[in-house]
Amino acid sequence: MKTIIAISVLSVVSFGALADRQALEPIKIIEPMAGLDEKKVDLGKTLWFEPRLSASNTISCNSCHNVARGGVDNLVTSIGHKWAIGPINSPTVFNSDLNFVQFWNGRAKDLQEQAAGPIANPLEMALTHELAIDTLRSIPQYRTWFKEAYGVDDITIVEVTDAIATFEKTLRTPNAPFDKWLQGDDLALTEVQLEGYNLFKAKGCTTCHSGPLAGGQMYQKMGLVKPFVTDNPDVGRKAITGNDFDKFVFKVPTLRNIELTYPYFHDGSVWDLKEAVMLMADIQLGMGVNEQEAEKITEFLRSLTGDQPEVTLPHLPPSTAETARPNI
Amino acid sequence: MKTIIAISVLSVVSFGALADRQALEPIKIIEPMAGLDEKKVDLGKTLWFEPRLSASNTISCNSCHNVARGGVDNLVTSIGHKWAIGPINSPTVFNSDLNFVQFWNGRAKDLQEQAAGPIANPLEMALTHELAIDTLRSIPQYRTWFKEAYGVDDITIVEVTDAIATFEKTLRTPNAPFDKWLQGDDLALTEVQLEGYNLFKAKGCTTCHSGPLAGGQMYQKMGLVKPFVTDNPDVGRKAITGNDFDKFVFKVPTLRNIELTYPYFHDGSVWDLKEAVMLMADIQLGMGVNEQEAEKITEFLRSLTGDQPEVTLPHLPPSTAETARPNI
Repeated sequence: MKTIIAISVLSVVSFGALADRQALEPIKIIEPMAGLDEKKVDLGKTLWFEPRLSASNTISCNSCHNVARGGVDNLVTSIGHKWAIGPINSPTVFNSDLNFVQFWNGRAKDLQEQAAGPIANPLEMALTHELAIDTLRSIPQYRTWFKEAYGVDDITIVEVTDAIATFEKTLRTPNAPFDKWLQGDDLALTEVQLEGYNLFKAKGCTTCHSGPLAGGQMYQKMGLVKPFVTDNPDVGRKAITGNDFDKFVFKVPTLRNIELTYPYFHDGSVWDLKEAVMLMADIQLGMGVNEQEAEKITEFLRSLTGDQPEVTLPHLPPSTAETARPNI
Repeated sequence: MKTIIAISVLSVVSFGALADRQALEPIKIIEPMAGLDEKKVDLGKTLWFEPRLSASNTISCNSCHNVARGGVDNLVTSIGHKWAIGPINSPTVFNSDLNFVQFWNGRAKDLQEQAAGPIANPLEMALTHELAIDTLRSIPQYRTWFKEAYGVDDITIVEVTDAIATFEKTLRTPNAPFDKWLQGDDLALTEVQLEGYNLFKAKGCTTCHSGPLAGGQMYQKMGLVKPFVTDNPDVGRKAITGNDFDKFVFKVPTLRNIELTYPYFHDGSVWDLKEAVMLMADIQLGMGVNEQEAEKITEFLRSLTGDQPEVTLPHLPPSTAETARPNI
């Protein structure tokens, strides 16, 4: 019986196609994550949902990078401490370890460095690292978990951000229809999706949107051919490098799970995926696509939605008399 | 081998004690929930974590009744739309189906009626039922799920609140040490906890805190013997009945998982459990307890922490062009 099933699978999967596509296509397969330290993952997951890392005790990492919603909050820009409105659209946490740098302007080299940012950002969680550590130290269960995961008798921001980053690395979304097609399953994409993918390549989208993330591998100017009209004042990489030629240069975002991560662009100004496709073709590539082409490309982009992570909520250990109370 | 284990268990479990305790003790066992419709539970869980039931698309049921934190937000009072500060402490959702009425002042007869409140409360989720339904109707996956769970072609607030209530009913916390003791396991409570429980009964706490919830079965005046000093203006049942004798009368809260559900009382004014015990003995019973007695009662109360629910986050279906955008 097993043999028969195997033969039947082989009949739709061409291993010749597999080898070719893996090597030749500009977008690569998203692999599930493996080999991480389970104790660090579990601790990181607990910290991911820990609102006591924010001044008000109401905002956790998951508030703006909601693992129930494609790893984002689906807002133009996020809402932080005391209803502060953030300056830039929250990027998805899914597959984010595959980004070559973190944040839209690349100011963090990896997820661990990134994770330190929002905790201390007055517009986001509005705590300080010192207060965050004091809170964790005040809770015996956290001291035990850090000891078990890191062998440390004291907790520092290094272990906190490493644990969060380790959990984030588990948030891969493999098995998208497009990945199955890359693996040789010709039936994984619809005819329209395949046409859309061919258009995506023919129009030059893969110049920037390539690799496993279909993005996340380079910086690019927003408004390369024609200016991008926005009321968002962010200047992109220029804020980091000081160079005028880095004005409006941002990390190219991933297109993985793009149907879930609206609204689009660093300013969150476009809610409709087809509209985003047409705008990109126009201002980045200067060649435009018609409605029908944009429809097909959008259908292809939907094939980049992978298995969403299965995340069981942690049980947060109670505060003690030493734990700082919420600052509302 | 199985037989030997069974005998070994029998040696510490006295079935005579079981029968006696079940019948005689004022606090009863929390049973796990069974027999609910899985489709309604799953849909209700999705709605439980659905921030699009709030105007800003950032507040879900779980924001104030966090299943990762004992079913509460551990705030004095909750933070709602545009950082509105709520009027009263958020009660735990855990085991809440066992309350004889819902809300502190009992204004909802059951969980379904309760669930309709926060969605439309301008200080909480700040939507209207109509807009909430419009949002759900605009998302094809929700239409399918409601059809599958309720057989309806259209979604109304009745199915929405029934689904949420059905999910809430799953949030029981069985197997607390005290439940094991009630079931006949003499070793489930420490000596101090057993002393604390005997004090709890001897001082009269069980007059109000009885039944499976150790509470939730009656109304009582807050400040029965001596006035309760608070700057919270809530008048309790009087707001519902108009009767002066209902002033400061509230539903007696559950003591289940009480070590997790700080701060205490309807005004969230007391963070320390022992302090709460001493205050209650003083103003409700007029007999006071000394520090050592309060310590023992507090230790007993910790034995009411049961198995916390294992909740896997849902995957929220994406909005469409017809879905209302967040109102920040």
